[in-house]
Amino acid sequence: MTGTAPAPFTADDYTARMERAARAAADAGLAGLLVTPGPDLVWLTGYAPTAETERLTLLVLAPGQDPVLVVPTLEAPDAARAPAAPALTLRDWTDGKDPYAVTAALLDAHGRYGISDNAWAMHLLGLQSALPDTSYACLTQALPMLRAVKDAAELELLSAAGAAADAAFEEIRGVRFSGRREADVAADLAALLRRFGHSQVDFTIVASGPNGANPHHEIGDRVIEQGDMVVLDFGGLKEGYGSDTSRTVHVGEPTVEERRVHDIVREAQEAGFRAVRPGAACQDVDRAARAVIADAGYGEYFIHRTGHGIGVTTHEPPYMIEGEEQPLVPGMCFSVEPGIYLPGRFGVRIEDIVTVTEDGGRRLNDTTHEMVIVE
Amino acid sequence: MTGTAPAPFTADDYTARMERAARAAADAGLAGLLVTPGPDLVWLTGYAPTAETERLTLLVLAPGQDPVLVVPTLEAPDAARAPAAPALTLRDWTDGKDPYAVTAALLDAHGRYGISDNAWAMHLLGLQSALPDTSYACLTQALPMLRAVKDAAELELLSAAGAAADAAFEEIRGVRFSGRREADVAADLAALLRRFGHSQVDFTIVASGPNGANPHHEIGDRVIEQGDMVVLDFGGLKEGYGSDTSRTVHVGEPTVEERRVHDIVREAQEAGFRAVRPGAACQDVDRAARAVIADAGYGEYFIHRTGHGIGVTTHEPPYMIEGEEQPLVPGMCFSVEPGIYLPGRFGVRIEDIVTVTEDGGRRLNDTTHEMVIVE
Repeated sequence: MTGTAPAPFTADDYTARMERAARAAADAGLAGLLVTPGPDLVWLTGYAPTAETERLTLLVLAPGQDPVLVVPTLEAPDAARAPAAPALTLRDWTDGKDPYAVTAALLDAHGRYGISDNAWAMHLLGLQSALPDTSYACLTQALPMLRAVKDAAELELLSAAGAAADAAFEEIRGVRFSGRREADVAADLAALLRRFGHSQVDFTIVASGPNGANPHHEIGDRVIEQGDMVVLDFGGLKEGYGSDTSRTVHVGEPTVEERRVHDIVREAQEAGFRAVRPGAACQDVDRAARAVIADAGYGEYFIHRTGHGIGVTTHEPPYMIEGEEQPLVPGMCFSVEPGIYLPGRFGVRIEDIVTVTEDGGRRLNDTTHEMVIVE
Repeated sequence: MTGTAPAPFTADDYTARMERAARAAADAGLAGLLVTPGPDLVWLTGYAPTAETERLTLLVLAPGQDPVLVVPTLEAPDAARAPAAPALTLRDWTDGKDPYAVTAALLDAHGRYGISDNAWAMHLLGLQSALPDTSYACLTQALPMLRAVKDAAELELLSAAGAAADAAFEEIRGVRFSGRREADVAADLAALLRRFGHSQVDFTIVASGPNGANPHHEIGDRVIEQGDMVVLDFGGLKEGYGSDTSRTVHVGEPTVEERRVHDIVREAQEAGFRAVRPGAACQDVDRAARAVIADAGYGEYFIHRTGHGIGVTTHEPPYMIEGEEQPLVPGMCFSVEPGIYLPGRFGVRIEDIVTVTEDGGRRLNDTTHEMVIVE
């Protein structure tokens, strides 16, 4: 997340998020939250240090206490310019001093704290040593839905990122595929995402022919041929919020079977989308999409979950997967992306970002779900 | 380190490093080392996953045991192509399974392990929960000199990175400074580093006039003017090994005072360099450079340590700082970079990478230390 441009929120927005997070921590039986640089810190404060180093930067949130940001003295001027700075007390520490002692003074010596999943082990060991009677839980396990429900401004930014990804698709369908390497088309896609306002490109999957049957293939040197199915899956960050969409195109005329598999995936995506409504469980979205594919006889070839959340990162909770009983809430945003993968032959995936509305769902992508024929 | 091209070492080279690391762990009283993606994993195995995610990837090294790499099943094919793969046993785990149980089976339930500084807290908590009687130390604290002594092939790569940075400096001294923003000159520098073979640019500091007096200023929108001192400090990775050099140039003719301050820093750099020899302590290098500046009456304006190590990263141990008694050993590589910073006025820093030889030191940068006049 380093270098991510902070989204245009006010100090009041960040204050509200920090208060909500502290309350959620209390509700989960935690004494507070300890947040190191990364997406949670960006979301809570708008602050992303220019580099993530071994020097401790840590937001301490606890119910009934003012938020404190522990920062290296060298970085204090940067932190003081963070959007949430008016709502933060900065507690700086100088090279050679013990940042864990500074932090320990802010904590309950017997408390249980949620800590960022990606906090450095070095820092966790430092805190455990300074306060041996504290205990810790991963933030994502303790509060998986912390960032899941987006407010109106966030939805607008996610819509804009989705529209930019759609614009990239409308352009890429016009470029030449046949005779070019996957990596070349991927480079075109990355350039298009940037042209339409992305500051960060996270992935540009171009998986042609048999490569499309491996959902984790990204790109390679394979030269795309006439008759190939090509899975395109691309996204990144625009103004701090994510895009992620997939379409499967075909070079020249598809066979009857290729068209049939594409139709099944399209129907599965539609069924998943129609299952989105407040109060439905995440797993209901997965089940709805999966049922279409299973009923068509391709169940064993849909080998991943149906979706994942999106926000200040391109992959985050909630997950649309069997066993996830979390109810959908208006403002949640996630992908619905079923696929069929026929080993050694081809794959098809169709993916839109969907947000939960008061009475159903709304897509944040709207390019066609018909199979697009490319050259 | 993600995406870093692995340096051209053989499986035997990596095997030797892993054996050396396991022996060093035993000598330090540790049951073994637990290494997650990042510079240590690159150095030990040549492996850098395409993305660092919440999925556990962990190298387990223990004296007398074969090295085991715990990897997510999805990433096992990538790991199997790592340069060190012939010397590794891969132990893969599938989504939904418990990677800490897989790892616990490889560990001594009562052992003390060194763990990567930047291992995710999530993973450390998982291990602590799976094996409550284990204990942990940060790898860099337990074995600070693990990667400090470079072999002949590494020295060659560091020399090539230094030569590329020098080539960038020879070009940048010919571009126009006056009337352009710091950010524009920095972009030129970054492009030059890439043109001379860098795959990753870590920093391109251009600190003009009063900005030069802040050693942590990187770049800004300040327009460089006639009469400015400009500190240039730039580096990154070329073929997996780092460069880092600083020169201070002047736009037009310097004043007598500017020339005097530059001369003092040049003498300090020379004194630091001359202090480099096997058996000297790291702090001796700092003291030698600092004495020149203090004797000239500028002691209070040299506000950082004299140097840091370099290798597969651009900042690592050993540190040339008061209190660091670590003896220098042939093959160590580090910066010698004294500076003088006059608040609100200007700064001067001169930095070369130096390696310890059998009887002294050798510079890996060789552009002039005279003050270069630019336009």
